Amino acid sequence: MNEKPISRFPVPAVADLPDDIRTRIIAVQEKSGFVPNVFLGLAHRPDELRAFFAYHDALMEREGGLTKAEREMIVVATSAANGCHYCVIAHGAILRIRAKDPLIADQLAINYRKADISPRQRAMLDFAMKVSQDSADIADADFEPLSAHGFSQDDIWDIGAIAGLFAFSNRLANLSAMRPNDEFYGMGR
Amino acid sequence: MNEKPISRFPVPAVADLPDDIRTRIIAVQEKSGFVPNVFLGLAHRPDELRAFFAYHDALMEREGGLTKAEREMIVVATSAANGCHYCVIAHGAILRIRAKDPLIADQLAINYRKADISPRQRAMLDFAMKVSQDSADIADADFEPLSAHGFSQDDIWDIGAIAGLFAFSNRLANLSAMRPNDEFYGMGR
Amino acid sequence: MNEKPISRFPVPAVADLPDDIRTRIIAVQEKSGFVPNVFLGLAHRPDELRAFFAYHDALMEREGGLTKAEREMIVVATSAANGCHYCVIAHGAILRIRAKDPLIADQLAINYRKADISPRQRAMLDFAMKVSQDSADIADADFEPLSAHGFSQDDIWDIGAIAGLFAFSNRLANLSAMRPNDEFYGMGR
Amino acid sequence: MNEKPISRFPVPAVADLPDDIRTRIIAVQEKSGFVPNVFLGLAHRPDELRAFFAYHDALMEREGGLTKAEREMIVVATSAANGCHYCVIAHGAILRIRAKDPLIADQLAINYRKADISPRQRAMLDFAMKVSQDSADIADADFEPLSAHGFSQDDIWDIGAIAGLFAFSNRLANLSAMRPNDEFYGMGR
Amino acid sequence: MNEKPISRFPVPAVADLPDDIRTRIIAVQEKSGFVPNVFLGLAHRPDELRAFFAYHDALMEREGGLTKAEREMIVVATSAANGCHYCVIAHGAILRIRAKDPLIADQLAINYRKADISPRQRAMLDFAMKVSQDSADIADADFEPLSAHGFSQDDIWDIGAIAGLFAFSNRLANLSAMRPNDEFYGMGR
Amino acid sequence: MNEKPISRFPVPAVADLPDDIRTRIIAVQEKSGFVPNVFLGLAHRPDELRAFFAYHDALMEREGGLTKAEREMIVVATSAANGCHYCVIAHGAILRIRAKDPLIADQLAINYRKADISPRQRAMLDFAMKVSQDSADIADADFEPLSAHGFSQDDIWDIGAIAGLFAFSNRLANLSAMRPNDEFYGMGR
Repeated sequence: MNEKPISRFPVPAVADLPDDIRTRIIAVQEKSGFVPNVFLGLAHRPDELRAFFAYHDALMEREGGLTKAEREMIVVATSAANGCHYCVIAHGAILRIRAKDPLIADQLAINYRKADISPRQRAMLDFAMKVSQDSADIADADFEPLSAHGFSQDDIWDIGAIAGLFAFSNRLANLSAMRPNDEFYGMGR
Repeated sequence: MNEKPISRFPVPAVADLPDDIRTRIIAVQEKSGFVPNVFLGLAHRPDELRAFFAYHDALMEREGGLTKAEREMIVVATSAANGCHYCVIAHGAILRIRAKDPLIADQLAINYRKADISPRQRAMLDFAMKVSQDSADIADADFEPLSAHGFSQDDIWDIGAIAGLFAFSNRLANLSAMRPNDEFYGMGR
Repeated sequence: MNEKPISRFPVPAVADLPDDIRTRIIAVQEKSGFVPNVFLGLAHRPDELRAFFAYHDALMEREGGLTKAEREMIVVATSAANGCHYCVIAHGAILRIRAKDPLIADQLAINYRKADISPRQRAMLDFAMKVSQDSADIADADFEPLSAHGFSQDDIWDIGAIAGLFAFSNRLANLSAMRPNDEFYGMGR
Repeated sequence: MNEKPISRFPVPAVADLPDDIRTRIIAVQEKSGFVPNVFLGLAHRPDELRAFFAYHDALMEREGGLTKAEREMIVVATSAANGCHYCVIAHGAILRIRAKDPLIADQLAINYRKADISPRQRAMLDFAMKVSQDSADIADADFEPLSAHGFSQDDIWDIGAIAGLFAFSNRLANLSAMRPNDEFYGMGR
Repeated sequence: MNEKPISRFPVPAVADLPDDIRTRIIAVQEKSGFVPNVFLGLAHRPDELRAFFAYHDALMEREGGLTKAEREMIVVATSAANGCHYCVIAHGAILRIRAKDPLIADQLAINYRKADISPRQRAMLDFAMKVSQDSADIADADFEPLSAHGFSQDDIWDIGAIAGLFAFSNRLANLSAMRPNDEFYGMGR
Repeated sequence: MNEKPISRFPVPAVADLPDDIRTRIIAVQEKSGFVPNVFLGLAHRPDELRAFFAYHDALMEREGGLTKAEREMIVVATSAANGCHYCVIAHGAILRIRAKDPLIADQLAINYRKADISPRQRAMLDFAMKVSQDSADIADADFEPLSAHGFSQDDIWDIGAIAGLFAFSNRLANLSAMRPNDEFYGMGR
């Protein structure tokens, strides 16, 4: 049993949380077998937790030209660039499961340019990384490789917005030293 | 009347938006005299717009140790570091009004280290800038100057979370080349 | 009336300055209604002040392929990249007046790549920014877009030399914490 | 006889230059045995050449707390950081002669932090490098080591202004691909 | 069976290699169950392979103040900073085994400053990272935290030399796009 | 006679060294007239010294498409980028001698992009610098200019491996503050 703190900020007991949040947490726990620490780390601010997951679900569970695995690829690659323990470990696990590939998450985290991905996925990640790391320089020319690979305007928004949401999420996790659950490390391997 | 496009992505007509969003936009328009382009630029994704403003309001309108002007200071300084036209111009206007200071926004946008702010506000912005620009390196030592200036843990979360939310917002605005309304430039001067 | 110091270094009284410098300062004051602080901040070194303005006038008031507004555009964009309060505020005011455009200075200061400028002006500023920020990497290929937009060799020298002169001026202003006059902030809006 | 071009820009014949400039060039030639290319590279703009040397002489030949060799140290260290061939080679030669030290210029050009200099000179160069490379971050605390080593306010201005003038000069030399005279490489060794 | 190429450069058959190299490779294969690709990727240059492993063994198998697991920590943290797939994956596996810790390698690869390590190991890795990423700035002051944690001069050489050797090794692996064996990913988890 | 220390680490007496190392050192001394400090700086670790020189000789004395002078060019340009006193000074001397050119080493050390080299050598150094400074980003496209200039796969390995070996060597020299012998500075001028 891990005794290390999961956040620099207060972590309320699940029993003390508002009903809607407690219900969601219990549902996740029943499905996964544990409560991902992000729920506990954000729970001291219920309104913010609700807004975060509303945004997260709108982008990560949306139907469209990107598969769910591809959405997780964006999270893993950009979160690694931001040095975010929680996001790389937790979303690396989700990616391995969604992609049914035990290697892909580590490859993307270390150097996405060397990963076993398609040219289309490479274009997707090049754009996501530019949004994540140098958005002030985005120009019309950056959209051309995406269109050439068949991404729609809607898909491009998804790519950029996921990179943006996790730019935020990475900062919250780094701010709070949010600790990933030990369970994530081995999932999907 | 400005004829320049306000986004690279589709901009729906206000009349076609869901009721709750249309109502909010009309309320803002009645108060400000114009519709800030951020509402129009995000409106093609109603769920995301709702989540964004839920998060925004939770952080920017919260009671606590930071004044509303100080919250806007964080937005202006970090958005300038990210080269975000929309956020610097729009929140610069709001900051001038909230701080009743016609100079402060330009000072923070150019070089926050030279602005006419208190040592407490300087500590606040140093931390916000670290969250914004180098969150992977945040360490316990970074919290000490904040505590020394009387910021509570709750205040520190606000500082970091606002810097994080606008890291996201800056990326969405840069992704979409979101254009600030001309009205903002001269407000509060 | 602003009581904040205008420099870390000594600021002589205008009455004590050499005749030629005092005469120039009084002429500027009569035209503008105030003495720009750069004159006072450099006045403790009369020979250097004379050399600075000789260089400044040779480049900024020269006839040639660049308009006076375009010369100020170079100053504002490069000075913003160098975080120079004095130069962005003072030359931002001059640019607004010369370009008869209340928005352009703020746009260039935040992110010149998103400003409302012509492709020719964009090429001019791309080159100026390279001279300002990474001159060691200048290569023959950097001159091609300028020639393609009709800039002569003489114009290119002007672009590069203005970027260079303000690389110097920005450093002097940052060295001395030179404070821009409050009057500049609102001029030309 | 070196046939390589000394500048990307026009190089007038000495005979065609205005009297004052031609006289200065001939005087330098008689003293050194050759005409340093900086005179030829700037001569197509006589007013700028005059302003440059007025500024140069005001800073480099000034009496004060810095020796002439120390002034050249600042030039060599900062010009190396800016990748400027002309300034490192030409001022490296002058430094070797003024310091009567055949090793010092190469040491400063490669890594000034490892050079055989006094702690006082190290403080001088640390400050000069900050002015040269990151002037936006200069703070009052940067002045303390200089005062502790006995530098006066006037000396500190000299250090910063020399770093600033050569920030400009390096950019002009990189803009024009100004070639150092072959004679400089071996002088003072 | 993985069909992806393991190097951009020629990969000789083991049977064609010089006796000493073939013998070493077969010994490793018998111990590990597979031939790590680094042997095959370097084998087209037998003299260099011999020198590499001579250096590697001298540093990684040396007795001294650093455990073998700590030596691997240096490899993993610095190789991640250099974006080296092969070294992070292969040495991550070795580290998990030597440290008997399934989490440590991923933690060090993502952000060593957030890993579950002792303050002594943190000081070791701070120094290793400085040697790896910014060795030109190493100063006497960087040695003080190491001495304070009880590292001897010999230990400090080990830390720095391991960081240096893998600066080399990372570049060879990135040059050749050396592919880690799939077996490494799951070892020690 | 220079009394300055040549290393932060122990420097054994030549007489106390193992026979093979002492013999090599004496041979170099007889040829050059002095013992290059790199031998003394590494001698406290005989196995590592042997491995270093085995690697060095395998790469620097190899027959192939690169001349010995070109191999030294790689060393000088990349070592300058890493701020390594010992390597720039010592290999600068060797380069001057091998290239029979008194200017080339200083040119490469200050800014290799402005040096008097052939387009083929420029392509070689662009690639070497990428291996040295940003190897994580090496892609197939980086090999094309090399092939276009006639470099074989074997030559490309040499270029990259030399850049890599000196990435290591520069770090050892910076770690130990290895001092170049005074004799090197003037050799070959």
